[in-house]
Amino acid sequence: MYTLYDFSPSGNCYKIRLLLNQLGISYERINVDILNKESRTPEFLKINPNGRTPVLCHDGKYLAESNAILWYLAAHTDFIPKGNYEQAQVLQWMFFEQFSHEPNIATARYWISILNEEDEYKEALKAKISQGYAALDVMEQHLQNHDYFVTNQYSIADIALYAYTHVAEEGKFDLSGYKRINAWFERVESQKNYISIKSQV
Amino acid sequence: MYTLYDFSPSGNCYKIRLLLNQLGISYERINVDILNKESRTPEFLKINPNGRTPVLCHDGKYLAESNAILWYLAAHTDFIPKGNYEQAQVLQWMFFEQFSHEPNIATARYWISILNEEDEYKEALKAKISQGYAALDVMEQHLQNHDYFVTNQYSIADIALYAYTHVAEEGKFDLSGYKRINAWFERVESQKNYISIKSQV
Repeated sequence: MYTLYDFSPSGNCYKIRLLLNQLGISYERINVDILNKESRTPEFLKINPNGRTPVLCHDGKYLAESNAILWYLAAHTDFIPKGNYEQAQVLQWMFFEQFSHEPNIATARYWISILNEEDEYKEALKAKISQGYAALDVMEQHLQNHDYFVTNQYSIADIALYAYTHVAEEGKFDLSGYKRINAWFERVESQKNYISIKSQV
Repeated sequence: MYTLYDFSPSGNCYKIRLLLNQLGISYERINVDILNKESRTPEFLKINPNGRTPVLCHDGKYLAESNAILWYLAAHTDFIPKGNYEQAQVLQWMFFEQFSHEPNIATARYWISILNEEDEYKEALKAKISQGYAALDVMEQHLQNHDYFVTNQYSIADIALYAYTHVAEEGKFDLSGYKRINAWFERVESQKNYISIKSQV
């Protein structure tokens, strides 16, 4: 029995919905409206003391942090490569995503397209945009010689990076010059049981 | 053959030095002076296109991101618990560290005690301090019922969180009220083959 505490527009939550669908795992979705501070209620803080979505509940056990949840669900499946070095490379890209990518690209999207407060965040956005492009440049460079991020095979590293990259234009990032990233989008979107971030499946 | 590309004051680099020592792995240390922009040279960017330390080289293969390196080195040792859920909990705390903890606590220390530019960052520090205390509160709460972060056994989750927490006062965080965290420091520091962040071993 799986339950996902989910905020629908969140790329971090979408990662989990995408993988659950690709693994054919059925689950209950509980909507947590973070705009209405529902991730900071006393009840939710019992589930995740860090007050963030997504949270997965599996047979009564709770797990937070999107990329840790991806790892948990994908263990012993083809979504994680087998070798120790290859698994560490998956984690390398997922830590890159949470440290160098998400705080810039997802935050710009959140301020501009979810809160609709671009003007209020005008100054702070400058650093986010510059650092976000730096992260996109690292991805574009890697994809010059690779179809996917690790072992040239679709893995949870691709899911983690795809989630916010493919909606980066909602944070006013111009992706038109990123040919390798755009070609990789098509490869991700052609995977079996792919669903979009807007899918209500 | 292991080589660590290392910036000595960095907590992220210290994580790797501590685990390597606890595993009894000998290695070469190559100093990368990030204050002198040595992590952004064309040579270094070939090793890590994201331009950050630490980087581990093992038998010619490179790996970046401190917590991914911890995972790589600790695989199949007692520093990672065995179960799938327990392993995902280790990752949950390591992603918490890189997303909610390090960008606040390590950055305040970097600005104040490494760059010595507290005045220049006065405004930006306010948010870092507030969010850093929030991360410390999450840790203190967890340690009310646990001796260590996962399975009540010392693991790489403890190493990841210890690295910047135990020097948080260098970022002007007052840890005196965090009794559980201070007691956990003692448990970490009593581990076999523990070395301090200043050790030149």
